[in-house]
Amino acid sequence: MAGNTIGEIFKLTSFGESHGKAIGGVIDGCPPGIELDFEKINIEVNRRKTNSGEFSSERNERDDVEFISGIFEGKTTGTPISFLIKNIDAKPQDYSKIKDIYRPSHADYTYEKKYGIRDFRGGGRASARETIARVVAGSIAKQILYKNGISINAFVYQIGEVKMELDYDSLDISNIEKSPVRSPDKVTSDKMLKYLEKIKEEGDTIGGIISCIIRNVPVGLGEPVFDKLHADMAKAMLSINAVKGFEYGKGFESVSMKGSEYNDEFFVKNDKIRTKTNNDGGIQGGISNGEDIYFNVGFKPISSIKKSQKTINKNKENINIEIEGRHDVCVVPRAVPIVEAMAAIVLLDHFLRQKTIKN
Amino acid sequence: MAGNTIGEIFKLTSFGESHGKAIGGVIDGCPPGIELDFEKINIEVNRRKTNSGEFSSERNERDDVEFISGIFEGKTTGTPISFLIKNIDAKPQDYSKIKDIYRPSHADYTYEKKYGIRDFRGGGRASARETIARVVAGSIAKQILYKNGISINAFVYQIGEVKMELDYDSLDISNIEKSPVRSPDKVTSDKMLKYLEKIKEEGDTIGGIISCIIRNVPVGLGEPVFDKLHADMAKAMLSINAVKGFEYGKGFESVSMKGSEYNDEFFVKNDKIRTKTNNDGGIQGGISNGEDIYFNVGFKPISSIKKSQKTINKNKENINIEIEGRHDVCVVPRAVPIVEAMAAIVLLDHFLRQKTIKN
Amino acid sequence: MAGNTIGEIFKLTSFGESHGKAIGGVIDGCPPGIELDFEKINIEVNRRKTNSGEFSSERNERDDVEFISGIFEGKTTGTPISFLIKNIDAKPQDYSKIKDIYRPSHADYTYEKKYGIRDFRGGGRASARETIARVVAGSIAKQILYKNGISINAFVYQIGEVKMELDYDSLDISNIEKSPVRSPDKVTSDKMLKYLEKIKEEGDTIGGIISCIIRNVPVGLGEPVFDKLHADMAKAMLSINAVKGFEYGKGFESVSMKGSEYNDEFFVKNDKIRTKTNNDGGIQGGISNGEDIYFNVGFKPISSIKKSQKTINKNKENINIEIEGRHDVCVVPRAVPIVEAMAAIVLLDHFLRQKTIKN
Amino acid sequence: MAGNTIGEIFKLTSFGESHGKAIGGVIDGCPPGIELDFEKINIEVNRRKTNSGEFSSERNERDDVEFISGIFEGKTTGTPISFLIKNIDAKPQDYSKIKDIYRPSHADYTYEKKYGIRDFRGGGRASARETIARVVAGSIAKQILYKNGISINAFVYQIGEVKMELDYDSLDISNIEKSPVRSPDKVTSDKMLKYLEKIKEEGDTIGGIISCIIRNVPVGLGEPVFDKLHADMAKAMLSINAVKGFEYGKGFESVSMKGSEYNDEFFVKNDKIRTKTNNDGGIQGGISNGEDIYFNVGFKPISSIKKSQKTINKNKENINIEIEGRHDVCVVPRAVPIVEAMAAIVLLDHFLRQKTIKN
Repeated sequence: MAGNTIGEIFKLTSFGESHGKAIGGVIDGCPPGIELDFEKINIEVNRRKTNSGEFSSERNERDDVEFISGIFEGKTTGTPISFLIKNIDAKPQDYSKIKDIYRPSHADYTYEKKYGIRDFRGGGRASARETIARVVAGSIAKQILYKNGISINAFVYQIGEVKMELDYDSLDISNIEKSPVRSPDKVTSDKMLKYLEKIKEEGDTIGGIISCIIRNVPVGLGEPVFDKLHADMAKAMLSINAVKGFEYGKGFESVSMKGSEYNDEFFVKNDKIRTKTNNDGGIQGGISNGEDIYFNVGFKPISSIKKSQKTINKNKENINIEIEGRHDVCVVPRAVPIVEAMAAIVLLDHFLRQKTIKN
Repeated sequence: MAGNTIGEIFKLTSFGESHGKAIGGVIDGCPPGIELDFEKINIEVNRRKTNSGEFSSERNERDDVEFISGIFEGKTTGTPISFLIKNIDAKPQDYSKIKDIYRPSHADYTYEKKYGIRDFRGGGRASARETIARVVAGSIAKQILYKNGISINAFVYQIGEVKMELDYDSLDISNIEKSPVRSPDKVTSDKMLKYLEKIKEEGDTIGGIISCIIRNVPVGLGEPVFDKLHADMAKAMLSINAVKGFEYGKGFESVSMKGSEYNDEFFVKNDKIRTKTNNDGGIQGGISNGEDIYFNVGFKPISSIKKSQKTINKNKENINIEIEGRHDVCVVPRAVPIVEAMAAIVLLDHFLRQKTIKN
Repeated sequence: MAGNTIGEIFKLTSFGESHGKAIGGVIDGCPPGIELDFEKINIEVNRRKTNSGEFSSERNERDDVEFISGIFEGKTTGTPISFLIKNIDAKPQDYSKIKDIYRPSHADYTYEKKYGIRDFRGGGRASARETIARVVAGSIAKQILYKNGISINAFVYQIGEVKMELDYDSLDISNIEKSPVRSPDKVTSDKMLKYLEKIKEEGDTIGGIISCIIRNVPVGLGEPVFDKLHADMAKAMLSINAVKGFEYGKGFESVSMKGSEYNDEFFVKNDKIRTKTNNDGGIQGGISNGEDIYFNVGFKPISSIKKSQKTINKNKENINIEIEGRHDVCVVPRAVPIVEAMAAIVLLDHFLRQKTIKN
Repeated sequence: MAGNTIGEIFKLTSFGESHGKAIGGVIDGCPPGIELDFEKINIEVNRRKTNSGEFSSERNERDDVEFISGIFEGKTTGTPISFLIKNIDAKPQDYSKIKDIYRPSHADYTYEKKYGIRDFRGGGRASARETIARVVAGSIAKQILYKNGISINAFVYQIGEVKMELDYDSLDISNIEKSPVRSPDKVTSDKMLKYLEKIKEEGDTIGGIISCIIRNVPVGLGEPVFDKLHADMAKAMLSINAVKGFEYGKGFESVSMKGSEYNDEFFVKNDKIRTKTNNDGGIQGGISNGEDIYFNVGFKPISSIKKSQKTINKNKENINIEIEGRHDVCVVPRAVPIVEAMAAIVLLDHFLRQKTIKN
């Protein structure tokens, strides 16, 4: 009801404010007996701090995940897995200046009107720091999916006007982490870096697109009518801070395609039913068909910019603000693990839902 | 769990197959004491049969909604509102030919693999006829929102390569129903009609985009973190048959915008807090800010085409099919009331959710 | 939210008023491919009209269940199963007299205050006729459980002061339907009939207890912490009209037992882990342990009595009423199939929930 | 799904094992802007350690609640309230002895069969220590209800064979905490203490009944059909460890009452609609009618006894066990705040649900 839980079977409840004691989460419905790789979870969490140090704002400390419950002798027990990531580097005093100000395109104004009260420290609950909880849960989901042969990989497809010109199928996934902007094509990655340099000099920010590919999904995941696999995926992606759009398969490109160009013909290959093209993006009628699932997630530019902006305060007075402190130039490199995490949470949830109809 | 319910407070459960006895729904959580305009509901339901008769496939009979419960002396009682729309014109025999065939880009294959059984008559549960239930619930939601001053209007923004060149703000909403393709700009509408003519002659189909505008939304609707207003909207839209993409506010365009261009500055107008631009599309941090909410929904071309296609049957044999019968050239004109309906369901649900935190 | 749905995976949404067009329901999450015995469903529904004709009020027509969706060629398809039972014999005019009156211990007053509006015809939504929807869903659940070896049997244990003196283990379940009051012990059954005769002559009504036994439940059903198997069972039973209490295993008797008397010691029998006694009633820590599950459900006397009663009307005027029309003397014989139905719905739901944690 | 969450709007998710790092919870949906009395919360939590020191087993340390999120400057913010209570005094080594043993009437066997893995330290998740999370959430709920004029008081009505002979209406609620067994009648309380002395000497345990009274509830709370106020109350009570039965109003006593004796006649007092008797226990048709809500909760004897018992281990070998360590003689004195907490959680949830249907 209050919107802090996602999933039907594998359920994540997220909690915590940017400058409170900790960010944390509770996962209910994780299958029991799973041996977890905790180092992998910590690596995922720290991927949120992009490797492109200079375009990133993140705090200096390493985020360490402390598990409170639900794990016994290294394995999940089927009881709720709760965890905390402390906010060690939090400096609440930095934020007194903006306590009465509504920053443009931030959530300051809407939170205050909705609740009548607002934790103004660092964006409070609206801060992207909240996504750490998602990355922890997503990393666990990814490990379980991986044991079932399913892989999830996201990467940066576009930053501002710099776009990859390659089809996702021709990319070398293993190059993603080698790129400071998490774009697997070296040429594009270099262009993006240069582009970001320029934006940074301007004291400005820029948007971007993350693409995600999910491979080896079993046929049959997704629930008609409302909980179509791609519908739940869309919601999960749009729930990430700064996301403005989602498309899967051919997406908005399909708008100007004819049925005869678009339709994915079935054929048989190695005795398996496959489609010749994959414009549907691995999902038909809301249910996975075994082909690769792929989708794009569009992010707006980060709202906190150094440049001076006009806005108002609580007393409806006009003011100018220059937002100080650590701020990213572009969110997409750091958002790659978040996209993967949300994809994993949605997919594992549907994977478990499908179990209820099997004998 | 099985995905046939949407909403947290205003909940629609949809049921029925294309060629079963009826399509229907149950609305639980509708506020009591609302006087309903039943003629308006029937009008909405019959809007699903596009006014562009020649590009449409719909059955000849008028769809009449029969209410079974939840209404007493013309008013809602707070108990579940259930309703049926009979499938009078259903001809199950038409479908025996395709009973063992997996039509390209349809849900035949995925349903069969998911459930091990499939009602093959007219697409069964996967048929777009299911959306009647949504339109009924949406029409009720729209009436309640309207009593609260909120209006929802969708229209066709693009068909294939023909796109409107106007900003939504400059459109005359009252022209939507005058256009056979539900596009309010006469010039564009005419171009679209001509374009559809050509596609029809080719025995082909084409995709399109529907835009939707919601006006006069109170500040404060939407629930962080996962149930952001636009995230729930995205899910609702992606749950509509043939939808491949969703974007709100500046959407994918914001990807190549700078923060200084994009950010919506606050100012005070007539003592009300407003934003100068509305790139955020009326939602900040997942919560409505009082500005217009607007979004685009991208549809792929209809999968049923007259042209011959290759595919396989259950026995993994290669076959050719030409899909006979009534089929649309383009889904978007008829999908306009469906987009409005889903928008209304999501918005009313969040409107009611917000009541729980008010004194 | 509005309380008309029960279950997490096997979900029943009930709708309909006593004197509206029909009572009905939607079952979402029923496993696909199940061949249903429709005659059995009709038999269950008509069991609600007790075999003790003279103490019963039910309408004369046979209730026939019409299935609208979710079934194809006699089998469940995994899509929502919706159904209607028409209210043929409804006579709304009978009820105009009580339209402004709050009958003692009925829901007239509370419905009106809650919703500000009330369908006063025959109790409206508060009528026990609503339970038909439960019996239909329960009958389907029972059939699925039965295919998995699980049996559910309820019977009348007590009416007023007449109580069975036998342990449930010594009863012959096959005698239940032979007794006009659904009490399997002939001696008790005869006493109950005589007792009811007396109450009827007085123009009065009386309460009773139904016992229920579930056999052959697999170990492991039930979810700690809040959704303990017996907690969900309690809720389901208390949701039945006129129920005032629930106890399982030794129930309230255990209050005055010592741990050394009460505890169920484990032992091994035919290589299976069993308990010597079964005071826990087949559930430990909220999870089934493989022993018989048994529980008691206590019903208050029917509120509609022929005797004159004092009450008030909407205008807060004192009045006397004698409630006319068809009314039972005691609800428990007719409530036996309802108790079984609710038990089946809860148990099947947990049976399916347990599938999500199995490999 | 996995059962660790209760509530629809005011939602508690509980986590933690008896001998893990902490017990904790997340409350989502708490109304914003509520000033909390933290000392009251700590008092409630420490009430779980009964004042009857000698019959209690609880650890020596005081349980302190640490709030992690959702509170800003002493007030709730509308975001999730998460909290921890550390398990300082946990001694995992104590439990190695019972790691392979299924203790009679404990959850050892069922947890292991359900999940295939079990945290055997001190009962793990099945330990009554989990209820601390409920008491914290319940204390917050109680504070909010209290601001709305609603009071909740539970007390011990019966221990073993010692039962109160007074009607609840004649009791002095303010005496509850003065009694070491939380029974407000001095005579009964003294008898209970003596009785417990005897049971303790025998190395045995005993059951009991807690009664609860809720006063000043507004008319209209509770949702027909399945979420009747008393049905949700029953589930909440049965979800407490060791509870075997629930009855409200006249409960099982009503079984042998006649309608003419039982029915609560309406009358007008000080211009308010009231009932002369209150056999219905303040709830009619599942909805509160403004009269006192009262109910009884029956507890079985504590399963851990000092006396030697027969049981088996994992290898199906017969063994004898004497359960060592700190153990209560009777759970009911300590369970009083737990019953109040669960009642408050259920009632506040329905209080907030009712807001959605008000204009």
